[in-house]
Amino acid sequence: MDAGTARRRLSSARVGHLATVTATNRAHLVPCCFAIEGETIYSAIDAKPKSTLALRRLQNIRSNPAVSLLVDHYDENWDSLWWVRVDGIARTADDAVERGRAMGLLAAKYEQYVAMPPPGPVLAIDIGCWRMWP
Amino acid sequence: MDAGTARRRLSSARVGHLATVTATNRAHLVPCCFAIEGETIYSAIDAKPKSTLALRRLQNIRSNPAVSLLVDHYDENWDSLWWVRVDGIARTADDAVERGRAMGLLAAKYEQYVAMPPPGPVLAIDIGCWRMWP
Repeated sequence: MDAGTARRRLSSARVGHLATVTATNRAHLVPCCFAIEGETIYSAIDAKPKSTLALRRLQNIRSNPAVSLLVDHYDENWDSLWWVRVDGIARTADDAVERGRAMGLLAAKYEQYVAMPPPGPVLAIDIGCWRMWP
Repeated sequence: MDAGTARRRLSSARVGHLATVTATNRAHLVPCCFAIEGETIYSAIDAKPKSTLALRRLQNIRSNPAVSLLVDHYDENWDSLWWVRVDGIARTADDAVERGRAMGLLAAKYEQYVAMPPPGPVLAIDIGCWRMWP
């Protein structure tokens, strides 16, 4: 898979899988909606800011910002399987301008966000490397 | 989601997402086929035993056996989203009897394995806890 195909597949995927590492070095994994701009991925925390679901992800990236986001395609014809993974460094998009921009990107990709803006912070992942298969 | 639904959804999912942690505490993430029996999940390494893809996962579980496997359902109606995650301890199924049994379970779930038995080791994940949403 070439880099252009990898970017196109990642950009258009409706759901990704985000792996973070807890402070006690255990893997933590959640599905998430996301949008990409340049070499940054944005993902809103759909859960309320103080909920357990939101806190776990935020705590993890504070103690260890190295994260991994995977999108993949499953097909019963195993010759058609593929996946694209980006490894990067996560942070919360605290700057109001960047957060607004990210919310615009997310709402443009997911109309669900237009009616129901996510209440929590926005995660930004600055991509360090792309991996793809095959 | 009750425990029975979670088990049924996990069991019938065609693909899961496996997160491991590298020796340098970075998240690593791959899609994988798997089968469940009791509280153990089996997943064959499809890549050749000495390939980079296979080695990375095996090295990770040797240095840190705590892994996480997620299955999820995406739907444009966000009221229909769900996921099931099991956190557990991974090992290779080195015992010939257990490996044979695991291969039988995998071939029963995926007919692709009947024609094309996976060349690599079989991972066993002993489930420590189940998480599900909603």
